[in-house]
Amino acid sequence: MFDYKAAFGNAVDQVRAEGRYRVFADLKRVRGQFPRAVWRRDDGTEQDVVVWCSNDYLGMGQHPEVLTAMQAEIDSVGAGAGGTRNISGTTRSAVDLEAELAAWHHKEAALLFTSGYVANEATLTTLQRIMPGLIIFSDSLNHASMIAGIRNGGCERHIYQHNDLEHLEALLAAAPADAPKLIAFESVYSMDGDIADLAGTIALAKKYGALTYLDEVHAVGLYGDAGAGIAERDGVLDQIDIIECTLGKAIGVMGGYIAADALIIDAVRSWAAGFIFTTSLPPALTAGALASVRHLKAHPELRAAHQARAQALKERFLAAGIPVMPSESHIVPVHVGNPVHCKMISDMLLEEHGIYVQPINYPTVPKGTERLRFTPSPNHDDGMMDALVTAMDKLWTHCNVARLPAVA
Amino acid sequence: MFDYKAAFGNAVDQVRAEGRYRVFADLKRVRGQFPRAVWRRDDGTEQDVVVWCSNDYLGMGQHPEVLTAMQAEIDSVGAGAGGTRNISGTTRSAVDLEAELAAWHHKEAALLFTSGYVANEATLTTLQRIMPGLIIFSDSLNHASMIAGIRNGGCERHIYQHNDLEHLEALLAAAPADAPKLIAFESVYSMDGDIADLAGTIALAKKYGALTYLDEVHAVGLYGDAGAGIAERDGVLDQIDIIECTLGKAIGVMGGYIAADALIIDAVRSWAAGFIFTTSLPPALTAGALASVRHLKAHPELRAAHQARAQALKERFLAAGIPVMPSESHIVPVHVGNPVHCKMISDMLLEEHGIYVQPINYPTVPKGTERLRFTPSPNHDDGMMDALVTAMDKLWTHCNVARLPAVA
Ligand SMILES: Cc1ncc(COP(=O)(O)O)c(C=O)c1O
Ligand SMILES: Cc1ncc(COP(=O)(O)O)c(C=O)c1O
Repeated sequence: MFDYKAAFGNAVDQVRAEGRYRVFADLKRVRGQFPRAVWRRDDGTEQDVVVWCSNDYLGMGQHPEVLTAMQAEIDSVGAGAGGTRNISGTTRSAVDLEAELAAWHHKEAALLFTSGYVANEATLTTLQRIMPGLIIFSDSLNHASMIAGIRNGGCERHIYQHNDLEHLEALLAAAPADAPKLIAFESVYSMDGDIADLAGTIALAKKYGALTYLDEVHAVGLYGDAGAGIAERDGVLDQIDIIECTLGKAIGVMGGYIAADALIIDAVRSWAAGFIFTTSLPPALTAGALASVRHLKAHPELRAAHQARAQALKERFLAAGIPVMPSESHIVPVHVGNPVHCKMISDMLLEEHGIYVQPINYPTVPKGTERLRFTPSPNHDDGMMDALVTAMDKLWTHCNVARLPAVA
Repeated sequence: MFDYKAAFGNAVDQVRAEGRYRVFADLKRVRGQFPRAVWRRDDGTEQDVVVWCSNDYLGMGQHPEVLTAMQAEIDSVGAGAGGTRNISGTTRSAVDLEAELAAWHHKEAALLFTSGYVANEATLTTLQRIMPGLIIFSDSLNHASMIAGIRNGGCERHIYQHNDLEHLEALLAAAPADAPKLIAFESVYSMDGDIADLAGTIALAKKYGALTYLDEVHAVGLYGDAGAGIAERDGVLDQIDIIECTLGKAIGVMGGYIAADALIIDAVRSWAAGFIFTTSLPPALTAGALASVRHLKAHPELRAAHQARAQALKERFLAAGIPVMPSESHIVPVHVGNPVHCKMISDMLLEEHGIYVQPINYPTVPKGTERLRFTPSPNHDDGMMDALVTAMDKLWTHCNVARLPAVA
């Protein structure tokens, strides 16, 4: 008989051996205190910390308008949706939210999913069912959820070097001219903070007759005059065929969606198992997301403040010789280059300085590029930044990690 | 160049041609009024309706303790979790909920997912990565999310006839004795309302050295003294290896989980992409689910009332010659046998009688077995039941649908 215990034990041991066994920090956010939170140690004692790695990029997850909308919806309709979209899950706020999201991205329609992960997985799988023979061209750094959707459909796929349009073009040119094709990519890549060339990718899509599928998970709410993302900033909203986003990061709640032509949405809606066979989002979440999106649309100054804080942190780190990786966005990655150091610095920041930032190790990033990833928000004030830079400076010396050449 | 518009158009046309194009009813639940809701027509007018097909089986989605817990959590910590479990999504109420769920199912540990769909998909895929060569034996009526997880892992799989243990044994006996094996099945099958033979399945698993994976999505909260499901009712909690449930049906909120030995949970936690790479459940949902589970544990009388209402409805239908399908559970399916009739009766119930029950057509159920599926809750009172039976009786005559032989 098969030894199940050994198999599960080996699976865990392997993760430990690769230095990527994860212990989740038990954190309690405190309403109105973002980015402050309370960390509970294993022994039950607590410590105030400043969170520097949240994906609630603008603190909307604690915005009074969002919380009020959620509480009002609970008062008015209750907790869960009570069924799938078809059975009883098509609630008023879900319908309104889809309309609002479609308009935001200048699309005819939008479709909600339970998460951004599910939106990617379900849509990319379903497109392969709708278009048998589909060939997908996928950026090498695409998120796990896109990779899952592409793989699960089983179609022919080609991975192009990250943001390398020459490589993409060579692959497109080699595929049959009349085959259905899809280019799947992200706008802001969340581990490096670099941004794809949307116009260049769209031009190739047109030249070779491909659809474009763009993940704006780390850009929605944060770029463009109305906050619709990089496609808005770059003026190409109407040239991306399918835009995919999350409600769980800058929007501050949870859920995911795609926006596209009404016909595309209707086809995905009718075919996607990951959409059809699952309980829909609780009305409180769709109501909260709706309030958040409306606020984000109307407040470009939040985005300006966000960019300014990210720029300030990059400059402060650079001045201290801390090796900030080149990032064109609000994401501030700092190179460590070793999983053990990375974990150690993260632990010491937490325990000795009350600063919470997770180590980013393999397999999230390639080996040798282990890093700390900071996401300053408009709510991270100068005092917090001072404390962070001072602590990093001290630990860099203490742990003897490489500094930037100019300062080292 | 490929004609994308035609492909999407064909996909939608095919669904229409098969009579399974779905138009979602825009429903607004009204807090404290469950199972009453407000239906908004396309022209914007509204009508009060009684929902007879909700999966919020006990009305917990509107229970004051659940709503208070959710609102208190929003007051205390805010809207979204702000990140994955690893980044910042391990909130206090998630940790507490996992402990409560593990104890409920008499397991060492539990792991939360964003939905029951994701719990099934992610876990079943991941088990195949952890145990290469795994052979999965899957009941023929298993839910789409289990099928997705089994398929996406790509392992060898055998489908056994629904609840047919002889067939299952023949398949198990034919597989190599020392290969890793898993039997995946449900306790309550939600479209027919029948219940699997847990003890019999467990005996086969032991005989042939297989793990058992049980989906209790339609049983959790509803069966067993403390409401932990059919495995509790049948006294076999400790003999099922992995139990999978949703927080979105009887518990009334949203989310999913598995419960098992700590080692199994740790392995799945460390390997499952669908768990690792997604924003975690908002604290309000985990807090609401925690309150709901605690309430359900302590209130067996809710379960007794639930069973009594289901029994009453079955008897009322039978007395009127309405063809209730044989169901051993709280689910009351009524045979129609034709997708057009099924949709028509459902539309007329809604428009003329203010009764909301969705038609269940192919592919959710096999062609020729189209049905209406009623889920009476403790909150469906006698008056509602009178109105339902009267309306059904009238429509059965009007539409000339077959009655039970004895009464026809
Ligand atoms: C690029 C990208 N796409 C999709 C997702 C999934 O979104 P969600 O967290 O809503 O599941 C994430 C992160 O979680 C992401 O980084
Ligand atoms: C048997 C079964 N398993 C799993 C699920 C998925 O659960 P959830 O709605 O939480 O995604 C469902 C229904 O939605 C189901 O009927």
